[in-house]
Amino acid sequence: MERIRIGMVGGGQGAFIGAVHRMAMRMDDRFELVAGAFSTDAENTRATGRTLGLAPDRCYADWQQLIEREGALPAGEQIEAVSVVTPNHVHHDPAKAALEAGFHVICDKPLCVSVEEAVSLRDAVAASGRVFTLTHNYAGSPMVREARERIASGALGEIRKVYVEYLQGWLSEPLEASGHKQAEWRTDPKRSGPVGALGDIGTHAFQLLEHVTGQRVTRLFGVLNTCVPGRALDDDDMLLLELEGGASGTLTASQVCFGRENGLRLRVFGTLGALEWAQEHPNDLHLTERDGAVRTLRSATEPTGEASRSLTRTPPGHPEGYLEAFANIYAAFARAVRGEPETLDAPYPGIEDGVRGIEFIAAALESSANGRWVTLG
Amino acid sequence: MERIRIGMVGGGQGAFIGAVHRMAMRMDDRFELVAGAFSTDAENTRATGRTLGLAPDRCYADWQQLIEREGALPAGEQIEAVSVVTPNHVHHDPAKAALEAGFHVICDKPLCVSVEEAVSLRDAVAASGRVFTLTHNYAGSPMVREARERIASGALGEIRKVYVEYLQGWLSEPLEASGHKQAEWRTDPKRSGPVGALGDIGTHAFQLLEHVTGQRVTRLFGVLNTCVPGRALDDDDMLLLELEGGASGTLTASQVCFGRENGLRLRVFGTLGALEWAQEHPNDLHLTERDGAVRTLRSATEPTGEASRSLTRTPPGHPEGYLEAFANIYAAFARAVRGEPETLDAPYPGIEDGVRGIEFIAAALESSANGRWVTLG
Amino acid sequence: MERIRIGMVGGGQGAFIGAVHRMAMRMDDRFELVAGAFSTDAENTRATGRTLGLAPDRCYADWQQLIEREGALPAGEQIEAVSVVTPNHVHHDPAKAALEAGFHVICDKPLCVSVEEAVSLRDAVAASGRVFTLTHNYAGSPMVREARERIASGALGEIRKVYVEYLQGWLSEPLEASGHKQAEWRTDPKRSGPVGALGDIGTHAFQLLEHVTGQRVTRLFGVLNTCVPGRALDDDDMLLLELEGGASGTLTASQVCFGRENGLRLRVFGTLGALEWAQEHPNDLHLTERDGAVRTLRSATEPTGEASRSLTRTPPGHPEGYLEAFANIYAAFARAVRGEPETLDAPYPGIEDGVRGIEFIAAALESSANGRWVTLG
Amino acid sequence: MERIRIGMVGGGQGAFIGAVHRMAMRMDDRFELVAGAFSTDAENTRATGRTLGLAPDRCYADWQQLIEREGALPAGEQIEAVSVVTPNHVHHDPAKAALEAGFHVICDKPLCVSVEEAVSLRDAVAASGRVFTLTHNYAGSPMVREARERIASGALGEIRKVYVEYLQGWLSEPLEASGHKQAEWRTDPKRSGPVGALGDIGTHAFQLLEHVTGQRVTRLFGVLNTCVPGRALDDDDMLLLELEGGASGTLTASQVCFGRENGLRLRVFGTLGALEWAQEHPNDLHLTERDGAVRTLRSATEPTGEASRSLTRTPPGHPEGYLEAFANIYAAFARAVRGEPETLDAPYPGIEDGVRGIEFIAAALESSANGRWVTLG
Repeated sequence: MERIRIGMVGGGQGAFIGAVHRMAMRMDDRFELVAGAFSTDAENTRATGRTLGLAPDRCYADWQQLIEREGALPAGEQIEAVSVVTPNHVHHDPAKAALEAGFHVICDKPLCVSVEEAVSLRDAVAASGRVFTLTHNYAGSPMVREARERIASGALGEIRKVYVEYLQGWLSEPLEASGHKQAEWRTDPKRSGPVGALGDIGTHAFQLLEHVTGQRVTRLFGVLNTCVPGRALDDDDMLLLELEGGASGTLTASQVCFGRENGLRLRVFGTLGALEWAQEHPNDLHLTERDGAVRTLRSATEPTGEASRSLTRTPPGHPEGYLEAFANIYAAFARAVRGEPETLDAPYPGIEDGVRGIEFIAAALESSANGRWVTLG
Repeated sequence: MERIRIGMVGGGQGAFIGAVHRMAMRMDDRFELVAGAFSTDAENTRATGRTLGLAPDRCYADWQQLIEREGALPAGEQIEAVSVVTPNHVHHDPAKAALEAGFHVICDKPLCVSVEEAVSLRDAVAASGRVFTLTHNYAGSPMVREARERIASGALGEIRKVYVEYLQGWLSEPLEASGHKQAEWRTDPKRSGPVGALGDIGTHAFQLLEHVTGQRVTRLFGVLNTCVPGRALDDDDMLLLELEGGASGTLTASQVCFGRENGLRLRVFGTLGALEWAQEHPNDLHLTERDGAVRTLRSATEPTGEASRSLTRTPPGHPEGYLEAFANIYAAFARAVRGEPETLDAPYPGIEDGVRGIEFIAAALESSANGRWVTLG
Repeated sequence: MERIRIGMVGGGQGAFIGAVHRMAMRMDDRFELVAGAFSTDAENTRATGRTLGLAPDRCYADWQQLIEREGALPAGEQIEAVSVVTPNHVHHDPAKAALEAGFHVICDKPLCVSVEEAVSLRDAVAASGRVFTLTHNYAGSPMVREARERIASGALGEIRKVYVEYLQGWLSEPLEASGHKQAEWRTDPKRSGPVGALGDIGTHAFQLLEHVTGQRVTRLFGVLNTCVPGRALDDDDMLLLELEGGASGTLTASQVCFGRENGLRLRVFGTLGALEWAQEHPNDLHLTERDGAVRTLRSATEPTGEASRSLTRTPPGHPEGYLEAFANIYAAFARAVRGEPETLDAPYPGIEDGVRGIEFIAAALESSANGRWVTLG
Repeated sequence: MERIRIGMVGGGQGAFIGAVHRMAMRMDDRFELVAGAFSTDAENTRATGRTLGLAPDRCYADWQQLIEREGALPAGEQIEAVSVVTPNHVHHDPAKAALEAGFHVICDKPLCVSVEEAVSLRDAVAASGRVFTLTHNYAGSPMVREARERIASGALGEIRKVYVEYLQGWLSEPLEASGHKQAEWRTDPKRSGPVGALGDIGTHAFQLLEHVTGQRVTRLFGVLNTCVPGRALDDDDMLLLELEGGASGTLTASQVCFGRENGLRLRVFGTLGALEWAQEHPNDLHLTERDGAVRTLRSATEPTGEASRSLTRTPPGHPEGYLEAFANIYAAFARAVRGEPETLDAPYPGIEDGVRGIEFIAAALESSANGRWVTLG
């Protein structure tokens, strides 16, 4: 099967997530990166393209140019897909334009910076008939898949409690004041949108919770804090949640938990069992069984299901990680682009996941501002 | 030093915590149990006393008789102290009567079942001049002490976030409906008071949080749930907290988290460091240092302080536990009774801790009923 | 049931294990310590006795006097049992004399310092008809019991591999040279016998291995090292083992593994499963099942058996530990002394365990000296 | 920088390690796979090449043809390097031929099947002046690098004890008897050479030990067992070791430890500290410091050194793994091929590591056969 010709928006030298996307692309060799608008700085774009071995005339000044000129190339030569890895405020416009130009799109999360933009993108996806994928990469992790399958099969009975947390510490200091690039845009409302930590990591926690439980959050009570003086956006969030099936729980997301790296952790308790997954040891899934003993499942071992096994590239005991989960998302995207058979349900986070994330943010903002419970649809 | 003659109220055959108290008493050989009103069932009291080697005429029909008749014995023979290990609703009356009769009192938690009772006991303690100790046993754990010392010394800088949880699963089923004695009284408002899980375990979490941080919770938002149909009291609680120093956090207490045993865990994040302690591995204290690395301190080892070392009876690597922490509380009580020198600050949870617990419960109830933040003094 | 009157040999102020024995005695309230020959220093003996509330005339100058004079007291007053907690070289004589005088004996490990002494004690036990118990305290740990039961039931199939290790670090420096009391006698051939680490901790590892597997070691290859210059006895041992059932494995015991506290750990692999237990987290037993998933059993929970449950005093989740395991040994000793029914097989380590330990030491010494495999009977 | 044109020997459909090599190649985009002799089955080779997008005329019948015909292509078109991923017995010949034809070589471990072959390859490397890399992939793990750096800097003082183990369970059953391809060749002396488990995993453990400690093993005592009846090679090994600096220790390698996946673990104890690393959680390095507390370093965090950081592609908290370590080896290989500056000492395992592995195997075989210590140079 021919590799997919893809172009990238964002991801110039000095960026973080663009390089991760490129590694994820290469892992299964399904993509060929042939074009880019990597930066608003033309020199950065040129240098990035050179490093990646791109033809200079396919390193574009901006995403508008990329979409326009690629669209003008012959069918067998032009890109088929666009990867959008810019800061949040530059997700909507290039993604929409790419879809309208007939390209498939894979976009970093959160989807965009307002409910209006989210709805606009949903409409654009529907109108285009193109594949749209959002890189909630944790959904690509084998044991997240295993957790989802176990809950769907009824192994936990009815869900009663859900605790999800995403604790980081890297914004404990006002790094944005000293020119730290990643901190700068994430704490800048113009680029990050109306929320900081909640968009950056809270949406991961939220998507994970809904993805694994298969249930929608229907109501929440939220408190969005800013702990570091002078910071323009929230860096610490606490929410109480209610789920459609009657469960309740908490979601905490913080970037000022000193020393924590990427403490994304989900615990689900049901009437017949429980489970726990933590991304820092992603190959372990802790399942509490009816007799109360905790079984630790490891990815790709005998007791795991077909679905999670289909997401592992290595035998049991070889730890998979972050990049591989990313690559699973890209792989599902590729299968969809090529119209190949798909054995997974919800093989990748899509436009609806993006919309949900934005609705979630809006509800949390409203609850926090008003000190009231807010209903989620 | 002569052993302290003590009498016990509650703790007859079939009870749980009374036996734990007796083991804790014996561990350091500072007590001699000489009298008891172990049960309202006279036969149970007699049998319990016989097993414990008590003189039959010092096994009393009820706590009133115990206090009256012991008080009538010669000074060198009568009990000096009373241990109260009854269900919550029978804490206040015997404790108060014992104090008024001139006995020291050590009482199980929570202190009682209403703010009125709590204030009444506080007054009684003040008027009596006697020692009063509440068995928040986790405060007796060496590494809890170490955590408190580290925070007091400024090792964490200013505290920003506090997460405390106490998750159990044993009430996932309606055990009270099938005659399970421990479940019965704990879910019965007549005996447990106005709260279930919150009093039984939430107060432990709360005391631990205030004890370790050295700060008072000043405001909270609470949701008290009853997950098991037909249960008369809360079995699952979620609270958002604010502390006097400006930190915020969550307190979760649940008895329907399937499979969990005694998941009491505290995490504190400051501007310069962080710490984590979990009672199921009580000898470990996880300290995050300024460079972000996590150091695991073990009780009684070189890097621990004098205070925590004074609470260990065994060399490093010999796991201490629940009973030993209990015994530390008894030991501090004994030192106080005997008027011996004390090197610890806050050597044992006292009347104020009890009052705080009851105020905490009342605030949580009010917040949950009204959906509002409630201020704690 | 009346408490057992007991006397103690050794355990004066400044000793370690004597105090542990006394705490273990008290935990279940089956013993009354009424006599002692705590030290060769008369003042130490007097002071120790005073602290423990003993009658001055039952604090004896030496163990000979203790046995003689107690034996002369009226039957209902004299001690019934002797606890021997002296350094290794003073185990044999008082234990033997006590047995010959008709007293039951509970003795610290290792049994003694030579095979001759071991045989002599075995004969004395047989001739006396008295109870003799050796405090291999780890055998009293509930999950050690659970491990033994699981293997006996065939859950692991045929055993193939056994790895046992006991790693400490406290003798990394020549503490004996600076007057450290515990280090002094343990590294002194006159008091410790012909081996250091091997007797002090290697025998624990060995007894654990044979106790849990239910199999005898039949052959070994050993290397006994002395790492700290100037030390008179081994402080680091490595052995290859063969078991009677055909399994093989390693036993490592070291007191120069920098920073390790009491790293006693056993791993057993069979044809159908595997298990792992480590004393620093004694409530966990890790069982690998047929499908390869690891189940973590916690003591006193539903999936554990009756035998291990009978050894726990607290509900699931309340960590038990070292002292409690000690107390289980004492409890089994008490049941035996009183002739009470016993539901456990091998309820306590006895004379045979002691003999085995000594044979084991002799074989290891021989193998190490000669660089050859040595057969164990 | 232009990508390196590479050809692969082995790695056809159904093989395991070839696909891993290809993922590792792609991760950093330094290689272009343009030729292959993937299998002795021509159809497999064709299909593999097709899947990988190779030109059909560069999919060769065997490695001899690959080397000959590629060498005949124009300089700017022919391959520059060969990746050898065949079973052990087909390492020496293609690697040597490739070197003699002027190609760089990256080869899977163990190097070959006899000391004669090893010496022959060493000579060929020296004569060729080409880069030769052996994929002892664990050496590419960031925290293995960190461990090595710490020891080299003296953080542990003088090394006293080394324990290394590699425990797997997948060969607990005679899989080779039922056509399991990976089991078949690994237990077949014709393809695997004179050892099974020792070559397959024992050499990893050995290389890790020497690489991290920076010391050579000078003497060993080995026992090579075959646990599964009918198996032609060892599946379980135990060795006692002595190191040139005076330390001693154990190396255990087994493929019949039921349920274990890839339990490679190294522990090193010195006079001033200790460390532990386990490949199943490769991002953690446990360092025992002078005060005895254990610090857990995570890869790419502040307390780690430049060397280990240079091996991570993602920020702290994003678990790296097996593939990434492989890719680090490839990256170092690429830098060497291109003659680029290198900041690491021992940037990749090379010919000497391969020779050491073979010498190690020979010594172990000899010791096991004769029941004697054997000296390693």
